[in-house]
Amino acid sequence: MIRVGLIGYGYWGPNLVRNFSAAEGSEVLMVCDMNQQSLNKVRKSYPNIKVTSDSNELIKDPDIDVVAIATPVFTHYELAKKALNEGKNVFVEKPFTYTSAEAEELIELAEKKNLKIMVDHTFLYTGAVRKIKQLVEDHVLGDIFYYDSIRVNLGLFQHDINVVWDLAPHDISIMEYVINEKPQAVVATGAEHFDRGLEDIAYLTIYFTKNIIAHINVNWLSPVKVRTTLIGGQKKMIVWNDLEPDEKIKIYDKGVQVKTKEGKYNLLVSYRTGDIWTPRVEQTEALKLMVDKFIDYISNGGRIINDGPAGMRVVRLLEACNKSLKNKGEMVYL
Amino acid sequence: MIRVGLIGYGYWGPNLVRNFSAAEGSEVLMVCDMNQQSLNKVRKSYPNIKVTSDSNELIKDPDIDVVAIATPVFTHYELAKKALNEGKNVFVEKPFTYTSAEAEELIELAEKKNLKIMVDHTFLYTGAVRKIKQLVEDHVLGDIFYYDSIRVNLGLFQHDINVVWDLAPHDISIMEYVINEKPQAVVATGAEHFDRGLEDIAYLTIYFTKNIIAHINVNWLSPVKVRTTLIGGQKKMIVWNDLEPDEKIKIYDKGVQVKTKEGKYNLLVSYRTGDIWTPRVEQTEALKLMVDKFIDYISNGGRIINDGPAGMRVVRLLEACNKSLKNKGEMVYL
Amino acid sequence: MIRVGLIGYGYWGPNLVRNFSAAEGSEVLMVCDMNQQSLNKVRKSYPNIKVTSDSNELIKDPDIDVVAIATPVFTHYELAKKALNEGKNVFVEKPFTYTSAEAEELIELAEKKNLKIMVDHTFLYTGAVRKIKQLVEDHVLGDIFYYDSIRVNLGLFQHDINVVWDLAPHDISIMEYVINEKPQAVVATGAEHFDRGLEDIAYLTIYFTKNIIAHINVNWLSPVKVRTTLIGGQKKMIVWNDLEPDEKIKIYDKGVQVKTKEGKYNLLVSYRTGDIWTPRVEQTEALKLMVDKFIDYISNGGRIINDGPAGMRVVRLLEACNKSLKNKGEMVYL
Amino acid sequence: MIRVGLIGYGYWGPNLVRNFSAAEGSEVLMVCDMNQQSLNKVRKSYPNIKVTSDSNELIKDPDIDVVAIATPVFTHYELAKKALNEGKNVFVEKPFTYTSAEAEELIELAEKKNLKIMVDHTFLYTGAVRKIKQLVEDHVLGDIFYYDSIRVNLGLFQHDINVVWDLAPHDISIMEYVINEKPQAVVATGAEHFDRGLEDIAYLTIYFTKNIIAHINVNWLSPVKVRTTLIGGQKKMIVWNDLEPDEKIKIYDKGVQVKTKEGKYNLLVSYRTGDIWTPRVEQTEALKLMVDKFIDYISNGGRIINDGPAGMRVVRLLEACNKSLKNKGEMVYL
Repeated sequence: MIRVGLIGYGYWGPNLVRNFSAAEGSEVLMVCDMNQQSLNKVRKSYPNIKVTSDSNELIKDPDIDVVAIATPVFTHYELAKKALNEGKNVFVEKPFTYTSAEAEELIELAEKKNLKIMVDHTFLYTGAVRKIKQLVEDHVLGDIFYYDSIRVNLGLFQHDINVVWDLAPHDISIMEYVINEKPQAVVATGAEHFDRGLEDIAYLTIYFTKNIIAHINVNWLSPVKVRTTLIGGQKKMIVWNDLEPDEKIKIYDKGVQVKTKEGKYNLLVSYRTGDIWTPRVEQTEALKLMVDKFIDYISNGGRIINDGPAGMRVVRLLEACNKSLKNKGEMVYL
Repeated sequence: MIRVGLIGYGYWGPNLVRNFSAAEGSEVLMVCDMNQQSLNKVRKSYPNIKVTSDSNELIKDPDIDVVAIATPVFTHYELAKKALNEGKNVFVEKPFTYTSAEAEELIELAEKKNLKIMVDHTFLYTGAVRKIKQLVEDHVLGDIFYYDSIRVNLGLFQHDINVVWDLAPHDISIMEYVINEKPQAVVATGAEHFDRGLEDIAYLTIYFTKNIIAHINVNWLSPVKVRTTLIGGQKKMIVWNDLEPDEKIKIYDKGVQVKTKEGKYNLLVSYRTGDIWTPRVEQTEALKLMVDKFIDYISNGGRIINDGPAGMRVVRLLEACNKSLKNKGEMVYL
Repeated sequence: MIRVGLIGYGYWGPNLVRNFSAAEGSEVLMVCDMNQQSLNKVRKSYPNIKVTSDSNELIKDPDIDVVAIATPVFTHYELAKKALNEGKNVFVEKPFTYTSAEAEELIELAEKKNLKIMVDHTFLYTGAVRKIKQLVEDHVLGDIFYYDSIRVNLGLFQHDINVVWDLAPHDISIMEYVINEKPQAVVATGAEHFDRGLEDIAYLTIYFTKNIIAHINVNWLSPVKVRTTLIGGQKKMIVWNDLEPDEKIKIYDKGVQVKTKEGKYNLLVSYRTGDIWTPRVEQTEALKLMVDKFIDYISNGGRIINDGPAGMRVVRLLEACNKSLKNKGEMVYL
Repeated sequence: MIRVGLIGYGYWGPNLVRNFSAAEGSEVLMVCDMNQQSLNKVRKSYPNIKVTSDSNELIKDPDIDVVAIATPVFTHYELAKKALNEGKNVFVEKPFTYTSAEAEELIELAEKKNLKIMVDHTFLYTGAVRKIKQLVEDHVLGDIFYYDSIRVNLGLFQHDINVVWDLAPHDISIMEYVINEKPQAVVATGAEHFDRGLEDIAYLTIYFTKNIIAHINVNWLSPVKVRTTLIGGQKKMIVWNDLEPDEKIKIYDKGVQVKTKEGKYNLLVSYRTGDIWTPRVEQTEALKLMVDKFIDYISNGGRIINDGPAGMRVVRLLEACNKSLKNKGEMVYL
């Protein structure tokens, strides 16, 4: 039985407590939050869980095996480092850290201490992403041409990070997992409208190996919520609308073939338009699957898709985006 | 009665002949095309219209008042110049010309000869765009934050221009007309997948005065057709889905207010969510309105929104996009 | 070359003239309409077609092989009878006639004279209906449970027939064709709101052999246009949304199995939810296919799916609906 | 503090316990279920709530003020009667009872004992229904022409009632509340496909005073979930799509005017098409509002919209539907 202590009972923390409590292989021993109202909620819902406003008390508790960190990103590094130094495994919200240097240090520390890190890229465990991953691996799409994602809605403005760091980690982690190629360069543009020094709109172009282009449109000022990703392949194309309750993924048997190319007047392009297929997608809660996987990872080792290095790759891309944003769309190589 | 000669009876030409024939103030005297099959179609549908495969015959015909040019873009300049030199008014497909220098020359020539030019930015005459323009002018939206357009579908690959020059002229002309601010710089990224040296996917970020950011996503490799534009203002926000038959424009009474800003922990953001309003949009065919406007412009003078300078501004932005694309997303100032 | 004379150049007539003119095997010689404006439109668009306001002149013209009738339904019988008596084949708008007795008489007359009748149930020639027919014939759906159609919009109110006779002929003809079972009884309810004695809203339940139930919802007072049909089978279920431009038909691998039935408390129902499949649907204009088929039918004989008896079966069902409506939902047996 | 005992911890019961526990004015003392697994769930989630498998123990508990009944419908009458006889107020799932005679008896018993009954027609407390009610009361729609609802999905088959009794109580209660006219007659058709003697598909036509026609389409065999209601008025029309997360209600400024009526050839119908308006709808959980209202009703009296007589009117209409179904669509007067 893996015993978990959670730091940060805000927006996402309650979901972690619910899942670590419900999982067969884990239980939650303690929750830490600086806000007494949050601790009162824990007391009411989980009378058996200890509460504290002192993160050190939690981190140093000898009964705890895992420290789960669901606090603002700029606190991740310090809390995770302390936990690892106390011999705890670490489960940490995305984005992993504020800098890739911090991420690298935590990964090395965990390796040295033989401890495990999981970064909470929950989306990787959704039925939709697992289905897309499988389709790509089975060569259903053929060579991938592009990955184009829109993730926009009204708010929630974060006080310490821009819209890229808030919303794009989802897309970046999914994209890396699905495409399985190396990002090589980033061009990021954006704007901010409230004199905070933090972009509320941003557009990211990411160049991968094999001539794959990716684009991510994130926006806190959209009147409508959109969660749509297009993935274009040589053989098939995918539209993934995550807001659809039942028909999230559609696979289009569509394509383009450039027939002859002798002289620009003789361009012959043929378009193929066939059936559309909407595969059934597994409905199990992603967070449940991920928590089970983490328990197994700690108990039995092996590999997970959202380990420290995966989390670090996301941070590295986020850093590059920020640099490009600062330099007005300059291409930043990775 | 304005007498029209059309050069180029391909994809769009038949619509021009239909509308110039149906208009009260104009008639079509001659059609020119290099393709005999196209001319046969003209003969069958319009027995009274003369046909020719020699553009000079059309341009020099003394009975013709207007030369309408619906040929590939790289021929626009030469045909328009000849027509103006023969004392003809010119109606020309978008984009106006291949270079802004060409556009400038044609504008000067027309002015010197006291002739008129209209560039076929049909979208400006649609009920949807006219409604949006009116909403912006009436300050319904308040200060504009952003303009974000997606215009993607499968094909039609053009043999001489990239996807930016094919699809973005619509967005650029609408955006300039609606926002009514000056574009200052462009960052364009993209990719091509068929070794033609012409991008089939591109992402354009355009910075305007007053901190307005615009973004245009154009793609010839999308399995689905999307024609959606978001316009975010301080007071209201618009979603314009041009594929909706009846409910193209929705106005959202949504907004964000940043309340206090003392220290990053004290960020207070409030979100406003009110009603949605879908105004009825005029259904008259845009091309008909535009043709009537052109006839009036030639007959009575005055001003039109899609004159030569408007067409040139679009070409200038397209040039800047191509330059930025070539330089890997370098910001190009206008 | 089949030579066609058309009576009735109103809403649908122009489409018939366009298609009979464009077809390789036919040409239109004459058009008859009582309205001079309509005849002027014919003169302008088709200078070579003769016009008349006297239907007898058209019917008696010895050069005409086919009389196409696109007039209000209460005139169909008389015009078709005259045409058959003059030795002409007949193409007639839906619904075929005002009464099934009239339809029967016309069918007998045509047989006696060895002439052909086609009733214009265009929908049967659409790609969507042909695909659905094929799916049913290939036993993809298994036993059919129900057929449920909604066909509503604002207007167009007809002056001589109720909403059932205006809109339901589409559904009835498709349903009969697809299901291929005999309708046995009808229950119709409805209401009218403008003191005209003609329903503007109606609900039809039709019982078929093999326990198939069909329902048709027709309404001239709907703010939105809906054209959606659900077809439930034991193995698969279809949703056909005819307003979708590209994805009209979706086939759901869904079903219900009632496992055990010992006692009402022991009901075990299992639900199957699998993939969805959206087959590509042929895009050829249905009217073109139908006109070609009619020409072939006249020239070479054989069988068509929308012959006189098919048209008569639709009229018989419409009659039964009217009778049930009059008797407040009384079940009317066929 | 109102003390509640709940009988039936199946599909809906947990929602009742959650809301009666969270409400300021109530608490849950005991839960009864015949299924030990259900009771274990209660024990785990609510350690302080007593559990029992004996409904009499609960009903006779002197500390309990309210008996909430969330069991199959055929048990409602007996449980509610016992509870009333023990001096308890009663909260009961829809439909209220199996027969209107039972409902009448319970209402009388409650009145005699000065106790309160609330029937759980939760939908009446949703933001959507309250908004529609207000629009009708404010004469925004003008005279109502029709109410047309579709409520279909795959399952859940009930073992003791047909699809009408399962799904239509929602529509009937909303319809009665919104229209505020008397239903006068019912025509119901339907079919069943699994030899259970219980319809899985049904179509209900309900005639109200003032020439209002209502129609309800309920179906357990639909591959897609639909929750759409059209309400047509003389001045405005509503489309209510309850599956839309944010834009549930659209108000169409559409209408029909029949201008002159001299002779059937002189029908002049004009159609009005104006803007569409999507009002913001209150998002508070309906069940929470209803529970608060019930507590207030017990404590302070007054009137509620879902009292015993309201529940009885729904049962009376359901009875009429079953009678009409049995007699093949015979019109049943109320």
